[in-house]
Amino acid sequence: MAEAVSRIGLAGLAVMGQNLALNIAEKGFPISVYNRTDTKVDETVERAKEEGDLPLTGYKNPKDFVMSIQKPRSIIILVKAGAPVDQTIQTLSQYMEPGDCIIDGGNEWYENTERRAKQVAEKGLLYLGMGVSGGEEGARNGPSMMPGGTEEAYHYIEEVVKKVAAQVDDGPCVTYVGQGGAGNYVKMIHNGIEYGDMQLISEAYDVLKSVGGLTNEELHETFAEWNDGELESFLVEITRDIFSVKDDKGEGFLVDKILDKTGMKGTGKWTVQQAAELSIAAPTIAASLDSRFLSGLKEERLEAARIFREAGVEDILAVKDLDKKQLVDDVRKALYASKICSYAQGMNLIRAKSIEQGWNLDLGELARIWKGGCIIRAKFLDRIKKAYDRNPKLASLLIDPEFTKEMVERQSAWRRVVSLAIEVGVSTPGMTASLAYFDTYRRGRLPANLVQAQRDYFGAHTYERVDMDGAYHTEWFKIAKKYANNASKYVSKGAGQN
Amino acid sequence: MAEAVSRIGLAGLAVMGQNLALNIAEKGFPISVYNRTDTKVDETVERAKEEGDLPLTGYKNPKDFVMSIQKPRSIIILVKAGAPVDQTIQTLSQYMEPGDCIIDGGNEWYENTERRAKQVAEKGLLYLGMGVSGGEEGARNGPSMMPGGTEEAYHYIEEVVKKVAAQVDDGPCVTYVGQGGAGNYVKMIHNGIEYGDMQLISEAYDVLKSVGGLTNEELHETFAEWNDGELESFLVEITRDIFSVKDDKGEGFLVDKILDKTGMKGTGKWTVQQAAELSIAAPTIAASLDSRFLSGLKEERLEAARIFREAGVEDILAVKDLDKKQLVDDVRKALYASKICSYAQGMNLIRAKSIEQGWNLDLGELARIWKGGCIIRAKFLDRIKKAYDRNPKLASLLIDPEFTKEMVERQSAWRRVVSLAIEVGVSTPGMTASLAYFDTYRRGRLPANLVQAQRDYFGAHTYERVDMDGAYHTEWFKIAKKYANNASKYVSKGAGQN
Repeated sequence: MAEAVSRIGLAGLAVMGQNLALNIAEKGFPISVYNRTDTKVDETVERAKEEGDLPLTGYKNPKDFVMSIQKPRSIIILVKAGAPVDQTIQTLSQYMEPGDCIIDGGNEWYENTERRAKQVAEKGLLYLGMGVSGGEEGARNGPSMMPGGTEEAYHYIEEVVKKVAAQVDDGPCVTYVGQGGAGNYVKMIHNGIEYGDMQLISEAYDVLKSVGGLTNEELHETFAEWNDGELESFLVEITRDIFSVKDDKGEGFLVDKILDKTGMKGTGKWTVQQAAELSIAAPTIAASLDSRFLSGLKEERLEAARIFREAGVEDILAVKDLDKKQLVDDVRKALYASKICSYAQGMNLIRAKSIEQGWNLDLGELARIWKGGCIIRAKFLDRIKKAYDRNPKLASLLIDPEFTKEMVERQSAWRRVVSLAIEVGVSTPGMTASLAYFDTYRRGRLPANLVQAQRDYFGAHTYERVDMDGAYHTEWFKIAKKYANNASKYVSKGAGQN
Repeated sequence: MAEAVSRIGLAGLAVMGQNLALNIAEKGFPISVYNRTDTKVDETVERAKEEGDLPLTGYKNPKDFVMSIQKPRSIIILVKAGAPVDQTIQTLSQYMEPGDCIIDGGNEWYENTERRAKQVAEKGLLYLGMGVSGGEEGARNGPSMMPGGTEEAYHYIEEVVKKVAAQVDDGPCVTYVGQGGAGNYVKMIHNGIEYGDMQLISEAYDVLKSVGGLTNEELHETFAEWNDGELESFLVEITRDIFSVKDDKGEGFLVDKILDKTGMKGTGKWTVQQAAELSIAAPTIAASLDSRFLSGLKEERLEAARIFREAGVEDILAVKDLDKKQLVDDVRKALYASKICSYAQGMNLIRAKSIEQGWNLDLGELARIWKGGCIIRAKFLDRIKKAYDRNPKLASLLIDPEFTKEMVERQSAWRRVVSLAIEVGVSTPGMTASLAYFDTYRRGRLPANLVQAQRDYFGAHTYERVDMDGAYHTEWFKIAKKYANNASKYVSKGAGQN
């Protein structure tokens, strides 16, 4: 029987698991690692040696692996979401003892986590679903982590994750998120926001390149400058970097050789489905998902482009004589304003779910743990944190005094960019969705009265009035028919007969 | 024991059920009706007498009701989707015999229909899920019906539904849709398209009223004219009617007194969730759902409007000196072009599901049965039918030669309307979503290459190239760092450290 040597265990040694294990070991916590295929174990052990004789021990047998961890045991699993998680739990839990804890670090659907937590509770095991963001670099050097489940289980790993997480000015990028699947849920919304950010940046790129005619060198300079200002963020930074990379297989820049087809995993889809479920508008995030779908139809798009070109509509409708400097400035403002709307949507999704589930999530604290380590890390998140600190019940980021001010300052530029893109025929679905969201939200009176009149006309759904309480129904058809008969002008073609 | 007197039965006598039963009786098919509460039965029997001694018999006891129907029995149930359907099936099926058939005419989630079909098959019963559209008027005088399930069961009711359905130039507005839950599914998408149509019309109204300053009289005239042209449809017709109705409780027009909060049922939500599930972009339908969500936040919107007004942003940003006639003409074209995009999304959703489920749905035939009876009935649907007749494998309505031509003719006006709305601050989420969809779909090269580069940068997700096969990964950070060191200008702030 192996001695219990390790503070913690980690099962699943693909890229994320390997890097997180090495990070934990580097922070001084002896760790046991296990993988279903032996080579990954050898690889990880080898890396631990190379990267400074880190206190990491590899196991090829699940029983030895579990036994090597000090009780009460904490085991992080980092395998593909879905069935592999169930299999891994089955494999490991047979050797685990009451009071031990399993932590799923994958991008799992929150209800799966809640189901598993119940299952393992029957064996006396504790369970956490912990979203981990930051890609392989983040996992290795400091990710943002979103653990949810029983608070007791969080305390098992608190000292470890606080050291392993990215560190920012106001602490480590980890917090106890909330009960049940709250950690997975928050990570899912984080990913939805990430989709939105990436889409908005790609639209800014498209406008600057396709309308403004900026070269990759100029794009590199532009994103570098943006990264020194209000847009400072990991995604703007890597975009800056991308424009500096030359093609190693031919002439020019690599970005121009990449096929314009975007892959995806499940979290963006789930976010959009949840928005519909919770009756929360999240059009910017939805636009980013749709753009990925449409990007996948490369052959269809080429064919459509050919058909419309032949019918007289060029890809880019008009080359404009533009003030480049003004355009760059406008696009920066449009990107920032669009981003605020996207985050407003994401945060409102989290709140709606928190209320539905009774999770009592702290939106400011969630913004704080995204300030470092994760893909959406940005200076901007500190502003969001402060907005919720000022008013934890803030209905929308848009009406936080500071964000309101920023929106007001940027809205004209934003409208110019979107109008220009529309005129030129370059689609900016994310930016237009954000702008429509803004203009809808800030409008006291919408044309929804007409929709409600229509619903009452054909389905007797009733309506409310602006000037008195109650639900009303009107015999629209009969009244309109009388009017038409008097005017003897319009004859009904459909209503009332079909 | 009561004698089997009726050709068919109908259980559930709320507004839709009552009207459909009377319609069936009027077409000469003796019908038995049943409801859990007796008063509804009396009410229906009374109406049958009043409306011309129609062959309708009421039953207050489920056994007598079932026994009164000729074998093999066909019983339509029209109760609220979900648990009430299960309860009604349980109540009735105990008296039904192998070979009898249950037809659920509600807006049911298609998987519930498939589950129930399996359940009742254990008793030898057949099952259909049949979407019925047209509101109470349609149900009474000729709805559009979308029955799905076993084809054998469809033949039980074929002669009935063909007479009961709305009749158009090329036949009755009913067809055997396909296996399983196909009928419910198609009805669900129909409703999603209906959401889109209503939203687009409300945006046209908003632009004409809020930007163009049209009065209700002018709006009435405008929609009347539109209903004589390419936009001829039930929804445009009832919109015309709505603008003629005066407020019976005060001064002015009723439409102006209706609260701008829109209700909804489940089908729009399901459509949007299915779009995400099937990887089909349906942004216009999604925008219409989001608009309903945002319309519901009336108090929040009033507060946001106040906050932004105080910060210097008026609800309507600028009153423009407009050519009203030109605006009306442009808005008509924008509405029509937006509508084509919305239908393209809906039809592609149906096709994607048909492929997934092996339903083998006939898109042209579905467009045909929507030509009459249902809420989205329109001249326009005949054009869609013909597009699929010309090419059943048409990838998108947008590239059907006739629709392409129409889009080309309207796109400039469409861009003018949307740009104007953006400039003035009036949100047109549906029209802009449609336009972005159009401009994305017809574009051979999208900025998705950047998104894919980002994904490869932080997650090693790999990318494809435009000029050679295979999946590639680049060490972006290392190369960019080298470049930055050479340029000794940009220092990484985030990548590779947290």
